[in-house]
Amino acid sequence: MVKVGIVGASGFTGAELVRLLANHPQVEITVATSEIFAGKKLSGVYPGLGRAGNITLTPLAQAALSPNAVDVVLLALPHGESQSVAPSLLRAGMKVIDLSGDFRFHDPAVYAKWYGREHTAKDYADQAVYGMPELFREKIKPARFVANPGCFVTSAVLGAYPLLQAKLVEPQALIVDAKSGLSGAGRKAKLETMFTSVSENVVPYKLAGTHQHTPEMEMALAQATGQNVVITFTPQLVPARRGILSMIYGRLTKKISAAEVTALYQTTYAQEPFVRVQGTGAAWPDLAGAVGSNDCVLAATVDERTNTVLVVSVLDNLIKGAAGQAIQNLNLISGLDETMGLPQSGFAI
Amino acid sequence: MVKVGIVGASGFTGAELVRLLANHPQVEITVATSEIFAGKKLSGVYPGLGRAGNITLTPLAQAALSPNAVDVVLLALPHGESQSVAPSLLRAGMKVIDLSGDFRFHDPAVYAKWYGREHTAKDYADQAVYGMPELFREKIKPARFVANPGCFVTSAVLGAYPLLQAKLVEPQALIVDAKSGLSGAGRKAKLETMFTSVSENVVPYKLAGTHQHTPEMEMALAQATGQNVVITFTPQLVPARRGILSMIYGRLTKKISAAEVTALYQTTYAQEPFVRVQGTGAAWPDLAGAVGSNDCVLAATVDERTNTVLVVSVLDNLIKGAAGQAIQNLNLISGLDETMGLPQSGFAI
Amino acid sequence: MVKVGIVGASGFTGAELVRLLANHPQVEITVATSEIFAGKKLSGVYPGLGRAGNITLTPLAQAALSPNAVDVVLLALPHGESQSVAPSLLRAGMKVIDLSGDFRFHDPAVYAKWYGREHTAKDYADQAVYGMPELFREKIKPARFVANPGCFVTSAVLGAYPLLQAKLVEPQALIVDAKSGLSGAGRKAKLETMFTSVSENVVPYKLAGTHQHTPEMEMALAQATGQNVVITFTPQLVPARRGILSMIYGRLTKKISAAEVTALYQTTYAQEPFVRVQGTGAAWPDLAGAVGSNDCVLAATVDERTNTVLVVSVLDNLIKGAAGQAIQNLNLISGLDETMGLPQSGFAI
Amino acid sequence: MVKVGIVGASGFTGAELVRLLANHPQVEITVATSEIFAGKKLSGVYPGLGRAGNITLTPLAQAALSPNAVDVVLLALPHGESQSVAPSLLRAGMKVIDLSGDFRFHDPAVYAKWYGREHTAKDYADQAVYGMPELFREKIKPARFVANPGCFVTSAVLGAYPLLQAKLVEPQALIVDAKSGLSGAGRKAKLETMFTSVSENVVPYKLAGTHQHTPEMEMALAQATGQNVVITFTPQLVPARRGILSMIYGRLTKKISAAEVTALYQTTYAQEPFVRVQGTGAAWPDLAGAVGSNDCVLAATVDERTNTVLVVSVLDNLIKGAAGQAIQNLNLISGLDETMGLPQSGFAI
Repeated sequence: MVKVGIVGASGFTGAELVRLLANHPQVEITVATSEIFAGKKLSGVYPGLGRAGNITLTPLAQAALSPNAVDVVLLALPHGESQSVAPSLLRAGMKVIDLSGDFRFHDPAVYAKWYGREHTAKDYADQAVYGMPELFREKIKPARFVANPGCFVTSAVLGAYPLLQAKLVEPQALIVDAKSGLSGAGRKAKLETMFTSVSENVVPYKLAGTHQHTPEMEMALAQATGQNVVITFTPQLVPARRGILSMIYGRLTKKISAAEVTALYQTTYAQEPFVRVQGTGAAWPDLAGAVGSNDCVLAATVDERTNTVLVVSVLDNLIKGAAGQAIQNLNLISGLDETMGLPQSGFAI
Repeated sequence: MVKVGIVGASGFTGAELVRLLANHPQVEITVATSEIFAGKKLSGVYPGLGRAGNITLTPLAQAALSPNAVDVVLLALPHGESQSVAPSLLRAGMKVIDLSGDFRFHDPAVYAKWYGREHTAKDYADQAVYGMPELFREKIKPARFVANPGCFVTSAVLGAYPLLQAKLVEPQALIVDAKSGLSGAGRKAKLETMFTSVSENVVPYKLAGTHQHTPEMEMALAQATGQNVVITFTPQLVPARRGILSMIYGRLTKKISAAEVTALYQTTYAQEPFVRVQGTGAAWPDLAGAVGSNDCVLAATVDERTNTVLVVSVLDNLIKGAAGQAIQNLNLISGLDETMGLPQSGFAI
Repeated sequence: MVKVGIVGASGFTGAELVRLLANHPQVEITVATSEIFAGKKLSGVYPGLGRAGNITLTPLAQAALSPNAVDVVLLALPHGESQSVAPSLLRAGMKVIDLSGDFRFHDPAVYAKWYGREHTAKDYADQAVYGMPELFREKIKPARFVANPGCFVTSAVLGAYPLLQAKLVEPQALIVDAKSGLSGAGRKAKLETMFTSVSENVVPYKLAGTHQHTPEMEMALAQATGQNVVITFTPQLVPARRGILSMIYGRLTKKISAAEVTALYQTTYAQEPFVRVQGTGAAWPDLAGAVGSNDCVLAATVDERTNTVLVVSVLDNLIKGAAGQAIQNLNLISGLDETMGLPQSGFAI
Repeated sequence: MVKVGIVGASGFTGAELVRLLANHPQVEITVATSEIFAGKKLSGVYPGLGRAGNITLTPLAQAALSPNAVDVVLLALPHGESQSVAPSLLRAGMKVIDLSGDFRFHDPAVYAKWYGREHTAKDYADQAVYGMPELFREKIKPARFVANPGCFVTSAVLGAYPLLQAKLVEPQALIVDAKSGLSGAGRKAKLETMFTSVSENVVPYKLAGTHQHTPEMEMALAQATGQNVVITFTPQLVPARRGILSMIYGRLTKKISAAEVTALYQTTYAQEPFVRVQGTGAAWPDLAGAVGSNDCVLAATVDERTNTVLVVSVLDNLIKGAAGQAIQNLNLISGLDETMGLPQSGFAI
């Protein structure tokens, strides 16, 4: 059994880790921390967790985070807080998977620019492996420190990678128009995420190169394809609890048909357990079709009238976009089958 | 391995059976039928099912429904259609769990009155055991034919049973004000269940003793408690995909406190794996707190000003209210652990 | 032209007053206050208001609230804050319509008990006329101080009044099971009203005689019918922006048919411009059928099996349940036609 | 008073025309037709219309459509049906505003290609003036036959026009990523528009140059700017009742700042009563901010990293995208003030 500690278990991502790991046959959660709800059971915070939430939350300062009790620590903290936690855990000999944005950029200056704060653990900034298994699996397996990708980023990168790898599109003119459900905005009460603010609504925010996931998409695609990638990223909130649907537009550099692009996607991801490519003729992927699963669902087509390739990329932001991908990484660094404990399907209804 | 056939696999309940059984370690789905989608994969109808939907649908007439291939048949057909299917399956030696209303009443006249049609398999009308494990577990275990309860009924009966059993309330003055998500209305396209009809809406229907679940609630409670029970049942659609929340009002026949009623519920269901009783002081159960789980979540309190006891009863209509309860029954009649393959939790978010 | 000041214009009710009064041919808004958004245009807070929001917000302390500039002040403040504002406005000679709960009870002890705080303007506690035109129109006309009813209260009282007036039901065993959209919870950001908390959910709260609208319903019905009324009130949040649907259950004291009860309602409200009674045979009123209008929509039926009368009562909580009813009162105390400026219909879609 | 006949009054657009015209001081509805609901009151189909729906529906064949009774006929029929109705009305001397796609293209071959059917009134195909007042007001005023624009088209064309007019973008590389509420899909019951299909979902459809609004956008922009325009149009359903939010991407042909683009939009539409341009610094327009109004709300910015201009364009599909714009046209061809009877604001909440 792999002993796992979850730091920040009462946030949305932390609770999703608990829910998913309750079905993992080779993982035992030995520690779960929360500052606000310390002393409570997690099921008191999220009654819906039922028996899976029968775990007592402890404050981080009192948590038994040592190699005796914990093999891998999953950090599900707000952005900026992992920097003060990860280094000491690593030094103490535990493996760490950080689900925040803190260790995704090897250059702390990039972090400072997009997150608007200095990095406080610069010595560790270049230590984490970027944890997107489909692109960097072999680097992840031996890693002791993994930076789990952002939710929008996972959707955009898995969607755009085959186009760039095949040099089909101009790398500096990609557009990612992404719609996200509200769980992506986290658990904190804000006017912007009240029911009366977002139901019956679509809300654009951080437009035109201001969202912090923009450079992360560019970095991951550049690393994977060796090209200088620049993206116009347009996030929008839609009235749904879960899910991200990205519409990716690329300007074609050569003639190609919808069938050929689809074949490229099917070939690229043929061996991937958690990427599903819809064939031509099937319905386009929709948000609900990915919710509840760990799958990124893709389809590609071509608008010949404007020489544009169009990719639909959908995933569940809390699973493939966060906790599920983290469990893929947990399995990989623990020598387990990568799919272990992860759902085989989402919801039909 | 128990070999299972699902008749009517492309409806909402059938698809939910497939989704849940994909996680069942001792069940293998050997047959899945659909008339409309015969020849297709179930994942073509419900892309969200992903790998769990990798099963080819056959028309019933061509399905290999024989004891060689199938131990238990789950009938997930529209009301009225099981009558022509169940008898021959039983005669051929297979066990049958019927999820429709066709075999819940032993008196075909009651069926005819509330469903508005003659029963066409009267010889079998009194053959099925009513499949609510919490009340009739020992009768279910040896059964070869089980009538799985209605969704509203499960919520109302589990909610009201302790009050009646303890003779705390007038048995002929119960009120069940129930709110249901839209999956309860089935997969057929109707004006009444379009998004524009039910979003931002609450829609009462079949009020004042006209809904066919009314006599079923009364029958199950009468059987379990030996009292003549009469209920005012008020179903309402709410803009949610899943879930039923029933507010049950009873007129007290003796003084009792909220704490005492709560203790009664906790005692009654102490050994039940799929009934959760919220204690006094906890938040009231809400719809989302049961969705995704096989749990019926209950809380009880007393309004001393009007001498009324109030019970909140919540469940996922597709799981505890249909497919999940059917799997409890499947486990029971197959000699398996009753909880096998069923979710240990719902969703936190 | 009637000159109107709105105190608290940036809350949901205040903004709804502005939206509706923009269509009122005999009203001019001369003052609109807000502390948080002082100095801003109201359209900066609510872009959807468009041209109607072209009004600059001032802090209350600097607002020109004098009889020269303002004939009637509408107080749209949080509960508890009108007590310190209304008395001086009245003394200065302006008429006041208070939309909060502060002056609805003539006995300050009742206020203290249910609102959990001492009343700080006891001399004025019994000065306001209760502003429900359908029941108290003649008292309202000459009034200089009106307490506008609560939203749940308006729905319950208009729904139950004919039954009590005709002595058809036991007055101390009424049940009001009410479902409300989220705008009823106000504009303040709270965890309980986030999209992720209430979408796909139904949330019961303040059950069993703990909601402050309970005694107000009882008081209004007692005043109108001369009976001692006691109510079990069960509020629940449903995932909708607007609207309240109350299901009212009464225990009949005599035999009566659904047609007779319907006729009673039609007769009672025959002259009312803002009460619509659906006849037998029509669809039951639903939430969406009242949204956008100033109508309370009613239907009544009888469950003969349990001797229960059932009334469905629906309204838009921000219009008939707050701002619209306040405009009825404004018209009445200003000598205008009661319907002036109010919408003649809600939405079809 | 202008006497108006509404043909197809029981569809969503027809009902919205009735709702809006109930507030029009110079219009009287003298005829309203419906085949399915002939003989019923419109309020029986849409109870929410209340008093505004107190109008009896007649079948078209029996409707008093003559110049004595009707000055202007509004055709709110499904696509394809106006062709057999409009010509005879015009010949009889009535003015006609057609809200379908039947007469928007002067070339019947374009219609045949995109709507998949032959045009059956070719003689009249080039007779209608395209009714987008902001671009073609002077042509509309004297017209006797107006083709009212499509909902997506109105959003895209008002959003893109200033960019093309100023020659700021490549005219053959525009992308319009549009999200629409469900009322845009019409009143017919379909599996695709059930609550269970679209709630908690985002559903792309007719991608990559297959939606019939594509050539209409291109035609209108070409007519207005004299350029050959080609657009990649990506419609998506979002779980909302009303509203369209279009995200428009253009490839800049010269350097320009966000402030300069915003100023261009403000200048272009300075005199328009129903176009609102949000300034830099304000929140981005969201769907809810346009719902209930006749406004098209716009904002523009520049992503300098990719040399892309981005325009957000939002409107209520049933008002500015259909019935409201038709009333602008009705006012124009009737010699009335263009804004008469139209809402001055949408909803704050």
